[in-house]
Amino acid sequence: MKKVFILGAGTWGLALAKILDSINNKVIVYSVIEKEIDELNKTRKNKNLDVIFSNTITFTKSLEELDSSDVVIFAIPSIYVRNIAGLVSNHLNNNQLIIDVAKGIEEDTLMTLSEVIEEETNIKDIVAMSGPTHAEEVAINLPTTIVAACKNINKANEVVELFRNTIIRVYVNEDIKGVELCGAFKNIIALATGISEGYGYGDNIKAALITRGIAEIRRLGLFLNCHEQTFSGLSGIGDLIVTATSKHSRNNCCGYYIGKGYSIDESIKMVGMVVEGLNALPAAIKMANKYNIDMPIIKAVYDIVNGKDVGITINELLNRPNKSEIE
Amino acid sequence: MKKVFILGAGTWGLALAKILDSINNKVIVYSVIEKEIDELNKTRKNKNLDVIFSNTITFTKSLEELDSSDVVIFAIPSIYVRNIAGLVSNHLNNNQLIIDVAKGIEEDTLMTLSEVIEEETNIKDIVAMSGPTHAEEVAINLPTTIVAACKNINKANEVVELFRNTIIRVYVNEDIKGVELCGAFKNIIALATGISEGYGYGDNIKAALITRGIAEIRRLGLFLNCHEQTFSGLSGIGDLIVTATSKHSRNNCCGYYIGKGYSIDESIKMVGMVVEGLNALPAAIKMANKYNIDMPIIKAVYDIVNGKDVGITINELLNRPNKSEIE
Repeated sequence: MKKVFILGAGTWGLALAKILDSINNKVIVYSVIEKEIDELNKTRKNKNLDVIFSNTITFTKSLEELDSSDVVIFAIPSIYVRNIAGLVSNHLNNNQLIIDVAKGIEEDTLMTLSEVIEEETNIKDIVAMSGPTHAEEVAINLPTTIVAACKNINKANEVVELFRNTIIRVYVNEDIKGVELCGAFKNIIALATGISEGYGYGDNIKAALITRGIAEIRRLGLFLNCHEQTFSGLSGIGDLIVTATSKHSRNNCCGYYIGKGYSIDESIKMVGMVVEGLNALPAAIKMANKYNIDMPIIKAVYDIVNGKDVGITINELLNRPNKSEIE
Repeated sequence: MKKVFILGAGTWGLALAKILDSINNKVIVYSVIEKEIDELNKTRKNKNLDVIFSNTITFTKSLEELDSSDVVIFAIPSIYVRNIAGLVSNHLNNNQLIIDVAKGIEEDTLMTLSEVIEEETNIKDIVAMSGPTHAEEVAINLPTTIVAACKNINKANEVVELFRNTIIRVYVNEDIKGVELCGAFKNIIALATGISEGYGYGDNIKAALITRGIAEIRRLGLFLNCHEQTFSGLSGIGDLIVTATSKHSRNNCCGYYIGKGYSIDESIKMVGMVVEGLNALPAAIKMANKYNIDMPIIKAVYDIVNGKDVGITINELLNRPNKSEIE
């Protein structure tokens, strides 16, 4: 039995809380948003998850139990990771297993979120968990695979043990940089597939956008010395597939509304949750420019989000010069 | 303007006929099934395609125009390719562009279909075309990408030119073996995702089956000296994505019925068209055994098709020892 402290009470943090509680860990869920905790304590429900949380899960506004926890999970929107990491820094120590499940690249520094947490907390060997994992399905015990990535593979293996005998099957990977790049930028490709669908295009071009989309993330990753197989793995193409084809995906939905002709603000409002792909766009464009990497799909999404006509942009993308698949 | 002779009047052959006719090629569609040709001449429709064929397309029971055609496309179910190739052999010559769009591996010989055609006709440099290309979408002019694969890249480039100014965007690839392996075996993975969905599982595990499914096809391909990037390409993961997630996919549908508990025969009957994944299974198992390649998902589908309980098989698959994603 481990004491698990989850920072963030969004759908993914809550789904993980439910799974880890179900195998008798002591689970504490914390949020800085006080009304979120009040609501959870009152109803023991979240409107997006089809589950009632067991009384053995603690919902709290206090960081008190953090110091004595064995496992700490960052499950907050990407843009808050640096602040929260700074906030909790004094409560963490090197014996704890620190896991990040937020996905993003910081715009100003181009750091991955595990790097941000490391910088703010001075803890080494943060583990990033990423994969095709809709919270809605995990919450109702549907089987799911995920990657635990860490330069120190022993830490990744601790995550395998943590989730043993649950519906979550964990694969390990030492290429944390590649895993985090995929996690951040797949949401942009999901915006692209949503836009294409909203515009009236079909499954053929959606599959092409997914395939060529991960190819451009891979191109960036290989330049940054990531491992090729990461991009073909569960946190790479796997996560992208579920994000770009599933009815649960917020990024895909948001893109769909944009493709239908709604404004960005209207589209975000209709989704009603954080759309990480929009947050990740500036960092992706900065990296493409800085390292001179050809990322035409991400560039097209960026152009559309900044007002360029959807039809013109898609057709320019389709009419690039023909080329070989093998680079 | 080219003279294009299409062998086979199924949905894919007809969709290609429509596209090539639309840019003013002389298109002739042939079938050995006489009533198929009679029906097409009478109605100029196919029940699965939302299109009326132009009068400029010729539907014929005769091979007469084959000798003088510039382009010949094999668009027939995989199991008939050897017979038809033998049948038309005397009508073909080395100046023609010969394209195979059928997908499969011959069970007895473990040859790809381009190899079968080459053997039967003594024509070199057959091109295999493969990718995420539902005929239903191509027929209504939705944009689509595809790979033209040939050891002789000039022949592949002829296909690029053939489809220029259509909604089909062609990428080239010299790794024809890899392209054909993917085309044949992706249908088995689509059966697996269908089975999982029919059994009640969700999008998370579907994405995992797709990701780990192409990983086992890649493993086989790398052993046979194929190019790694083929498996991450449009004819690899791209085609698998559309086959395993699209409502148009027969293999996915057939798997869905199997997962729901219908017999194999009932499931095939409900799909009402050729289910290539079932045809490809024996060859896949033979190759896995012959070359000693670990292909657990394909093996699981084979077991289920041969009567093993769906739930037990899926759970055995999910409870294999944990491992690293990087091989």
